[in-house]
Amino acid sequence: MTKINLAPPSGTRDFLPQELLFRRRVLLAAQTVFERHGFLPMDTPAFERLETLTGKYGDEGEKLIFKILKRGDKAASGESDLALRYDLTVPTMRVVSHHRHELPRIFKRYQIGPVWRADRPGKGRFREFYQCDVDIVGARSALADAEVLLALSAVLRELAFPGFVIRLNSRQVLRGMLEAYDVPAERQGATVVALDKLDKIGVEGLKNELATIGLVQTVVDRLHGDIAGSDFAAQLRQRLETSATGRAGLAEVEAIREAVGPELANGTIEFEPLLARGMDYYTGPIFEFYATEFRSAIAGGGRYDGLTSMFGRQAEPVCGGSLGIERIIMLLQGDAALPAPAGPLAYVTVWSDEQRPAAFKLVAAIRARGISAEINLVDGGIGQQLKIASERRCRFAVIQGPDEAAAGTVQIKDMDSGQQVGAPVAAVPATLARLAG
Amino acid sequence: MTKINLAPPSGTRDFLPQELLFRRRVLLAAQTVFERHGFLPMDTPAFERLETLTGKYGDEGEKLIFKILKRGDKAASGESDLALRYDLTVPTMRVVSHHRHELPRIFKRYQIGPVWRADRPGKGRFREFYQCDVDIVGARSALADAEVLLALSAVLRELAFPGFVIRLNSRQVLRGMLEAYDVPAERQGATVVALDKLDKIGVEGLKNELATIGLVQTVVDRLHGDIAGSDFAAQLRQRLETSATGRAGLAEVEAIREAVGPELANGTIEFEPLLARGMDYYTGPIFEFYATEFRSAIAGGGRYDGLTSMFGRQAEPVCGGSLGIERIIMLLQGDAALPAPAGPLAYVTVWSDEQRPAAFKLVAAIRARGISAEINLVDGGIGQQLKIASERRCRFAVIQGPDEAAAGTVQIKDMDSGQQVGAPVAAVPATLARLAG
Repeated sequence: MTKINLAPPSGTRDFLPQELLFRRRVLLAAQTVFERHGFLPMDTPAFERLETLTGKYGDEGEKLIFKILKRGDKAASGESDLALRYDLTVPTMRVVSHHRHELPRIFKRYQIGPVWRADRPGKGRFREFYQCDVDIVGARSALADAEVLLALSAVLRELAFPGFVIRLNSRQVLRGMLEAYDVPAERQGATVVALDKLDKIGVEGLKNELATIGLVQTVVDRLHGDIAGSDFAAQLRQRLETSATGRAGLAEVEAIREAVGPELANGTIEFEPLLARGMDYYTGPIFEFYATEFRSAIAGGGRYDGLTSMFGRQAEPVCGGSLGIERIIMLLQGDAALPAPAGPLAYVTVWSDEQRPAAFKLVAAIRARGISAEINLVDGGIGQQLKIASERRCRFAVIQGPDEAAAGTVQIKDMDSGQQVGAPVAAVPATLARLAG
Repeated sequence: MTKINLAPPSGTRDFLPQELLFRRRVLLAAQTVFERHGFLPMDTPAFERLETLTGKYGDEGEKLIFKILKRGDKAASGESDLALRYDLTVPTMRVVSHHRHELPRIFKRYQIGPVWRADRPGKGRFREFYQCDVDIVGARSALADAEVLLALSAVLRELAFPGFVIRLNSRQVLRGMLEAYDVPAERQGATVVALDKLDKIGVEGLKNELATIGLVQTVVDRLHGDIAGSDFAAQLRQRLETSATGRAGLAEVEAIREAVGPELANGTIEFEPLLARGMDYYTGPIFEFYATEFRSAIAGGGRYDGLTSMFGRQAEPVCGGSLGIERIIMLLQGDAALPAPAGPLAYVTVWSDEQRPAAFKLVAAIRARGISAEINLVDGGIGQQLKIASERRCRFAVIQGPDEAAAGTVQIKDMDSGQQVGAPVAAVPATLARLAG
């Protein structure tokens, strides 16, 4: 017999109960908090027509799209007409464009679900992973951006996630800056990419990078001098006084900081004038959540007015953000093994074949009260049954020996303390409810 | 500009909030009830290695598997190495085989999630649809089958689903019957298929069908005579006295009926000796839930001892069942339009630009108490804002005009009754909690 590969496909995971229950707790926290903030859930299919996804993610992204083979007569052609969703944003924009007239003028939606990318699998990088997005469609106000930041922050608070910094900027600040420093239009893209790398390459590395781009020396020197200075943000504010775009960007940033700052319990918000974020489509405020303790970005987003126009609709203001939920789960989980999930509250043992119907009636009565319970399904004596109850982490075992059966009672055994209390059969559900507190 | 197709791919659905919230309520009921019955959740990837799925679903099933195109250098070959899961059972058997030593001896798992089939889409038939399965691995006792039936029934009770009948049989009864009526081994498969069609083709149709199969006339007459008689079940019981397999099957059926029958609130359980169910892999008890009011099967399952051996593992007893959750959702939903989902409890209006920061502080304070709330993001006067609060089905609007601002109070307006009560700003979250009851 050939060896059968039982592992899940490369880059994907099977989730056994204890890990799945942990994940679910995190995802449920996000869901609860988003709804408390007035976001509504939406869902889209796992796959889209190929043409819906092509041309949206750049050349590198496009290579990572999982394509589905045509079926029927066309199956042999090797052609593809469908593809697994690569993110939740593009399908959402399709749906919003499709149903615009049925949706409220200001539509606040969240979506939590898997996406698929044919990326090279690695530590913390998967081919199937969850995204966790909120977006507000139709609101031009910077308060909408602030709402997104508050919702994401509140999820982290709900999860008792340790401290974070929200790094905030605006594409308008960046555009104003490029104006103010006389970066010519044809060098602006490359300049922003270089500035975004400052964290990695340092101030001197940046200087080299800017020179390589082909900026004239005076521009490089002025940019480098200001950035290397003691308070670049203050310096930049001054320079932006000459740029209407820059001033508008600063005003956005200030409005958001004022609204969000006082409401952050376990985080801070900082103006980060060099934050650029990769995606081309951002137009206004942009942000990134940085987990200080873990030195890791855990959320990001921004305003992308105009993305709905990709589907031939009128451009609409949209702002949104995404929690890096897989990373957050990994960080919260740490390296510690997860505790085995608690079993049902009660384990109803079966003394003998004759007692089986009574035991079955009892477990049904316990559940009918909304209490989780299971009945022994193993052949074996009470000793073995109690061992299984203990392995399953049930808090109580219910035992009815011949004496109890004759008296119409049972013993309820606390699996931690070993203490037993007697109870009439009819009172078992109520007694368990009381014991469980 | 070419026309862009904004609809989801054929056979799939976009779920806008009101429909998704309804679906979620149904799925959550299943999840809650399954856990109350001691089942634990498990999840598997959306796609499997192609070889994991091939050879498992018969020729017809196999044609409906969505295959994923190889990527990288192989992309042009049109070959496939991965495929979307076709059901939840085969991936579960792979995972159970892979992790057998880490799982409890008796492993009760449930799984609720989408599967994909390249079926011809039609009313109530989709290419992406949810399955909702429970299975018990490792228990030989008929009480395990009874547990499956109770868990499925309890979900229907939790959903207040109108009456149903559980049709119960055993493959052992069918095998005993074929023996007792002298159906030769090489005709048994076709005979079971014919018997299973009785509902559709009627007793006379069955007679023709049996003759076509090539059964000798005396066998056809005896089968037809018994089935056309007034009490086939009683007649069959008598005939099965000569068959050890038949008697074992009847005993299983009786044990399950006795355990399950008394616990069914809105359903009944009946021995249905001709029920066969299509899947080859069943070995013991088999069942089907039939919704009497809707004349529709809404659940099914049975015992398939040995399915784990498909992955080269020792055969293990397994029994399980599946709720036809898409059909149940459709039936519960009926033809009536779903009500729009209720919005957040409170809508905090914004009187003026100056009042914005105070309004933002207020909405954050309300949410911090766990109450859902949103803040107005539309440009427009209070009248328009209240209209939006009403459209969004918020129960209360919070308003702070200049007089209230001066006094440090707000007005809380009940959107149904129109009544207003005043409250100090600091008391708004508590007042809303009290008003909401």
